[in-house]
Amino acid sequence: MEGISKKVYLELEAPTEEDSRSSQVRILDKLKELGIDAKMSVKVLRKLYPLCDEAMWKITVSLAWNGEKWVAVALEKGDRTDTHYGLAVDLGSTTVVTRLINCNTGKCIGEASCYNHQIAYGTDILTRIFHCKDNEKELEVMRKATVDSIVECLKELEKETGVSSQKCISMVVSGNTTMIHFLLGMDAFCVFYTPYAVRADQPGFLPAADLELPVSGYVYCFPSKSNYLGGDIISGMVATELYKGEDISVFFDIGTNGELVIGNQEFLLCGAGAAGPALEGGVVQTGMRAAEGAVDEVKIHDGDIQTHVIGETEAKGICGSGIIDLLAELLLEGWVDIRGRLIPEKSPLIQEKEGALAVEYAPGLFFFQKDIDEFIRTKAAAHTMVEIMLRESGISMEEIAEFYVAGAFGKHVSKESAIAIGMYPDMDRDRIINAGNSSLDGAGKLLLNRGYLEDIDEILEKMVYIQFGAVDDFLNMMVAAQALPHTDFQRYPSVMKEMERRQKR
Amino acid sequence: MEGISKKVYLELEAPTEEDSRSSQVRILDKLKELGIDAKMSVKVLRKLYPLCDEAMWKITVSLAWNGEKWVAVALEKGDRTDTHYGLAVDLGSTTVVTRLINCNTGKCIGEASCYNHQIAYGTDILTRIFHCKDNEKELEVMRKATVDSIVECLKELEKETGVSSQKCISMVVSGNTTMIHFLLGMDAFCVFYTPYAVRADQPGFLPAADLELPVSGYVYCFPSKSNYLGGDIISGMVATELYKGEDISVFFDIGTNGELVIGNQEFLLCGAGAAGPALEGGVVQTGMRAAEGAVDEVKIHDGDIQTHVIGETEAKGICGSGIIDLLAELLLEGWVDIRGRLIPEKSPLIQEKEGALAVEYAPGLFFFQKDIDEFIRTKAAAHTMVEIMLRESGISMEEIAEFYVAGAFGKHVSKESAIAIGMYPDMDRDRIINAGNSSLDGAGKLLLNRGYLEDIDEILEKMVYIQFGAVDDFLNMMVAAQALPHTDFQRYPSVMKEMERRQKR
Repeated sequence: MEGISKKVYLELEAPTEEDSRSSQVRILDKLKELGIDAKMSVKVLRKLYPLCDEAMWKITVSLAWNGEKWVAVALEKGDRTDTHYGLAVDLGSTTVVTRLINCNTGKCIGEASCYNHQIAYGTDILTRIFHCKDNEKELEVMRKATVDSIVECLKELEKETGVSSQKCISMVVSGNTTMIHFLLGMDAFCVFYTPYAVRADQPGFLPAADLELPVSGYVYCFPSKSNYLGGDIISGMVATELYKGEDISVFFDIGTNGELVIGNQEFLLCGAGAAGPALEGGVVQTGMRAAEGAVDEVKIHDGDIQTHVIGETEAKGICGSGIIDLLAELLLEGWVDIRGRLIPEKSPLIQEKEGALAVEYAPGLFFFQKDIDEFIRTKAAAHTMVEIMLRESGISMEEIAEFYVAGAFGKHVSKESAIAIGMYPDMDRDRIINAGNSSLDGAGKLLLNRGYLEDIDEILEKMVYIQFGAVDDFLNMMVAAQALPHTDFQRYPSVMKEMERRQKR
Repeated sequence: MEGISKKVYLELEAPTEEDSRSSQVRILDKLKELGIDAKMSVKVLRKLYPLCDEAMWKITVSLAWNGEKWVAVALEKGDRTDTHYGLAVDLGSTTVVTRLINCNTGKCIGEASCYNHQIAYGTDILTRIFHCKDNEKELEVMRKATVDSIVECLKELEKETGVSSQKCISMVVSGNTTMIHFLLGMDAFCVFYTPYAVRADQPGFLPAADLELPVSGYVYCFPSKSNYLGGDIISGMVATELYKGEDISVFFDIGTNGELVIGNQEFLLCGAGAAGPALEGGVVQTGMRAAEGAVDEVKIHDGDIQTHVIGETEAKGICGSGIIDLLAELLLEGWVDIRGRLIPEKSPLIQEKEGALAVEYAPGLFFFQKDIDEFIRTKAAAHTMVEIMLRESGISMEEIAEFYVAGAFGKHVSKESAIAIGMYPDMDRDRIINAGNSSLDGAGKLLLNRGYLEDIDEILEKMVYIQFGAVDDFLNMMVAAQALPHTDFQRYPSVMKEMERRQKR
């Protein structure tokens, strides 16, 4: 298995008058003997002397794949093949997460994350896009903010592991189409504006220096399939290897936007749509990010709402996973009806507040009827995406081998709750798989295995993009899904059973 | 014929929701249709918007060959294929000469030259090398001086033609091994020091930005065969196409150092050696460069020395071509004997001066016996190089189809005089060809024809380097050549004839 970088230790013969090949050719010849066709960067040409002499011609060459050829991008004295590092970056619009990978062992030896510095120019992507739309200066500011976010993580990684990013050869970045536009310094208005033809979606390998990223070789950015289906999803494909299986699986990445892929080695259908910020605790009145003080777990027991609060402190609000738990519990306990309407008779915790019904989920914190309504619309959108994709592919839920849920959602949200509210299909829980940060995982895998480059070409070619907007009865289907778990309750037998169980108590 | 750069005009369909390919892919796909497999630089990715829209998707792409692939390095609105330029650079240790080439017509549309700024750190190469030997800071100064020399020429070219170098896609540089080392920022002591293994001799295509050279794409530096046989000679091969002929030819580049190639499509023998600064007017007491006030032509007529002075002013000294004329005339008139000893009886212009014999070649300017001796040693070295190469290849002078003399020497020195003193062989004058600035010519040809890259690989492989120092009887041969024209006068029948003719008068 060969990655996109290499370190090779060479013991060369010192030049003599009989063999007076140049240092350059001496090294490249030896690499050729090892089956590596390489060229040298200017930086390395300048380092040849006195390094080779001082090292008695025992040197380690760092090689970076540039898409077509190996490029020698760094030289060290002696055998330094033990320190072969690379970087995987998940360039999220909220959070940037980086991993330092030991390319010899494939192990992650450090992970660091930070908020995306772009947030200073808008918490949501659209605000950021408008902030620098047709404004070269502000676009450069946005680019810088993006680079700085990654650099902040790299510094953190260095503090944590003692390994400077300068010692890393290659970097793989996965991010959505807007993030990659900003990283490369391209106006991203195109991502959200008709005809949705973006600037660039196949950046490939770019010299790190051109991007002002502090690794010695090249930066690979995952390509995107379309404006809404970015490199983070392609990276998720690499992470899950869904495109390799015989069985059909679903890949679901849900946040402000939802992206979905369904398929196997034969076919890949994909689609994306706005899911709404509700899922990240955005729109909800007391909603907040999953930070200290956020309610992230909810259980209703004996008429009492029990919560877990991040940081074990006093509750300040509620985050996505908490909301989903809360909604599920409200439904299962019968505190809301199938339309999500609060039934005040069911609990004294349901009160009128600011002229509307609300449930007090923690002391002094209320979840309002309109929050519920908003959330149901959001989850209906997500549900409908899955439903349409299945229908378009002529596949029934029973045929789905694995249902991957990527990202924070997959990690933090209770499967039971997500099923209860009809966000996930009612299926065997073991087949619902938390794909974790698959965007980051895919980046790490590519770093270690160049073979995925071919796979990526294949994935892009195979993927058929379904425009949800172009599906005739999308709206009808979505309306039908605006119930807990669904207007067609028969689709959720396990939820029915649990409701019955609870109501028997 | 395809050069190392291209400009392609594309009329693209504007994106629609049906065809929402990215600007990048839209362009690359279209290029692929035209048979061009390309990738895009970061610079171009950033220019896609708003350029493509503003140009209504009628754009011109500049493509640079990077050694493996075409790289889109610039974008323009509309059809700008009429302005396709490239630069050829002869990076001489004394003079840097640049040519702006119209790559559509192949015509040179401007030439500019300047003294190499390195001269500030030593008039001769060795002084410069020692100046920055093992001194990173001074090496950087030397690199800068090299780059600045080229940039000065480019500015001059812009003034002359109105074409900025930024509008040029590719640059081809030919220079000797030391010059290329300095251009790339590499210590060059290795060039003159055992075991004569240099740092790098195959730089290939390097990003112009990495070299701080102001063209939009790549810079190709001719490779060198060995420390003393630099890229300027390889470029001379491309210029003369000596390696393609059926007939055997000689390529002779003589200055402070002499480089020699002999061969045809079957074989190439090459060698190089110090010729001595005498040839450039260096060592000679009243010697000077070919500048205003230099005697550059000499004739003896009716006992009188007639001279031509550069700039038509009063003579201040004598340059290389003047010295060779003077020596030839002294011999032909019988004012010196075959050993080059001045015979005072022959002319009142031969006088004792500062305790030695000297000939007053211009009012108050003397050419001394020791100057003659020095010069004879120099020309003997040059002669011996040719002689050895012929002997090693088992070829007689009669078999030589063409005798190319490169550089200033070929341009300015009288063939008759050079033969008379035994520097050139006594051969058919029409077969002695002034190759001009073949280093620059070769660079220009490569710019226009990528096919030469293969030829260059072939040339390097085919070339057999003869170490003159390793030739047993080199010294004996050189001593035999230390006569005017040669101790074996039979080799110079036309010179004998001319002497007889003059002495009959």
